Amino acid sequence: MKIGIYGYGNLGKGVELAIRQNADMELMGVFTRRPPESLSLLTEGVPVYAADRILEFKDSVDVLVICGGSATDLPQMTPQLAQNFHVVDSFDTHAAINTHFSAVDEAAKESGHVALISAGWDPGLFSLNRVYASAVLPNGVDYTFWGKGVSQGHSDAIRRIDGVKDARQYTVPCEKALTAVRNGEAPTLTTGDKHTRECFVVVEEGADKEKIAEQIKTMPNYFADYHTTVTFVTEEELKANHSGLPHGGVVLCGGTTGADNEHRQLIEYRLQLDSNPEFTANVLAAYARAVYRLAQRGESGCRTVLDIAPSDLSPLSSEALRAKML
Amino acid sequence: MKIGIYGYGNLGKGVELAIRQNADMELMGVFTRRPPESLSLLTEGVPVYAADRILEFKDSVDVLVICGGSATDLPQMTPQLAQNFHVVDSFDTHAAINTHFSAVDEAAKESGHVALISAGWDPGLFSLNRVYASAVLPNGVDYTFWGKGVSQGHSDAIRRIDGVKDARQYTVPCEKALTAVRNGEAPTLTTGDKHTRECFVVVEEGADKEKIAEQIKTMPNYFADYHTTVTFVTEEELKANHSGLPHGGVVLCGGTTGADNEHRQLIEYRLQLDSNPEFTANVLAAYARAVYRLAQRGESGCRTVLDIAPSDLSPLSSEALRAKML
Repeated sequence: MKIGIYGYGNLGKGVELAIRQNADMELMGVFTRRPPESLSLLTEGVPVYAADRILEFKDSVDVLVICGGSATDLPQMTPQLAQNFHVVDSFDTHAAINTHFSAVDEAAKESGHVALISAGWDPGLFSLNRVYASAVLPNGVDYTFWGKGVSQGHSDAIRRIDGVKDARQYTVPCEKALTAVRNGEAPTLTTGDKHTRECFVVVEEGADKEKIAEQIKTMPNYFADYHTTVTFVTEEELKANHSGLPHGGVVLCGGTTGADNEHRQLIEYRLQLDSNPEFTANVLAAYARAVYRLAQRGESGCRTVLDIAPSDLSPLSSEALRAKML
Repeated sequence: MKIGIYGYGNLGKGVELAIRQNADMELMGVFTRRPPESLSLLTEGVPVYAADRILEFKDSVDVLVICGGSATDLPQMTPQLAQNFHVVDSFDTHAAINTHFSAVDEAAKESGHVALISAGWDPGLFSLNRVYASAVLPNGVDYTFWGKGVSQGHSDAIRRIDGVKDARQYTVPCEKALTAVRNGEAPTLTTGDKHTRECFVVVEEGADKEKIAEQIKTMPNYFADYHTTVTFVTEEELKANHSGLPHGGVVLCGGTTGADNEHRQLIEYRLQLDSNPEFTANVLAAYARAVYRLAQRGESGCRTVLDIAPSDLSPLSSEALRAKML
């Protein structure tokens, strides 16, 4: 299948690399809002086009993977592009998913295309696991822990403080809380109970470090409700030790069975990722395959990962999957 | 939906308890090959019928959950019952799944019923995770570890030895192998490298313990290829400390992404179960819901867990799932 990439940041680059790992996929081109000649791809021979030329390629793209931001790009892009393409996006503003779904569903149904929104790992693989676990353990309580990993939003928030040159923030799951859940204690936990925040900060010469640390730790929503540590480092140290984009996390669901709920049952799903955008991109590629299959079967409208059967993600036939993986 | 249970051993009892946890399900009856009056259910007011009367209930069962053994029961029962009922089974002979699938598919298609085979956790939830992980990490290597848990087959094998009164065998995942996989070392491991076997054995008076231990440790297929420990206990100790049926295990998939495969990505799925049959039963109940939904949509034929979208397992609507779980 011929895949187009719309948007070429970290995620778009990840999709480019993901396509190389899938023998049944081919990258037909990258679409960008920047001047096309300013981009240099990781793959030789793949053309870069101006985003506004996308409609010329209506018949040469099987699935378009939209790699825009959730705040302003995707709410516009996905419904619009779904009028002419089968699309996948990674919309991750949890609270706005049903609104986004409706807009995309309308566009896709009207034009007879298939769209899949909110692919990735959260929303995405973590969501799947919350649904599977709650269906299997109806009295279960589920917990999601994020990290250890870099939060771009929190890093950006630190960078906006006066006197800060650069920063990197790690979200770290709290081991004590994790252990309590694994032990079946079913604790009541706030997000702040579940996570700590580690900040590595580069300041401008002469900046007041104490004041900056205080500003970080008391920042509402971002840090005030968490145990936050601030470590000042040099620009070189930040580059050497904190330039990756690792992430991950755990979804846990603990429930009981038995005539008197005497048996504890625990389901745990854990991701440990050296590269958050590349892993997310790999998930998008797998769901692009599913979108292609659904389109081939004549389906239309919007879907999420919850609507897709696992077999539609795999290049193997159903018979091979039953023989090898079931 | 009205659920019938066909077969009332540990698994059937588990399904009875699982139905209590699902507000949209009702147990309409239990079918048994034993004299019906010899069974006493955990639930008051639910009738027990002789298995050979099953066809009388063709119109009063929405989904029949078949709780028979994989060796001889299910290969006969499931294709036969699928001629008249929507059914779910837990067929777990991995090597024979495609054969079983074909027989059930033919019967179900011909009669216009929906059948789902091989539900449970392995095959079942573990299979799902193997498929999801391999689709997301095409170059990934996956590993399945079982335990710590009771293997009924291995316990039975010990019981057949002369002089043995009773026995309980635990399959235990090897921590060193698990750690190597979690560290991304992608080791080559045999089943024997991944597991050790712990045996708790009660012998008859005057039995030769040394000889029995030797017979266990050298038993081909079951123990010879494993690091096996044998501990002799009294009947009381076995009852007090080893009467449960815990189990569990881990599916791990490690792969890489990046232009030079420089980023390691790890997916881990872990189950820790106090009761293997009750957890399996809960999985069967969730898939009974999916079978009911497919039947309502007019589908027919055989399915496995790989063919079912996660949303069909949940009592919640798609919109509620997107709002609460995605």
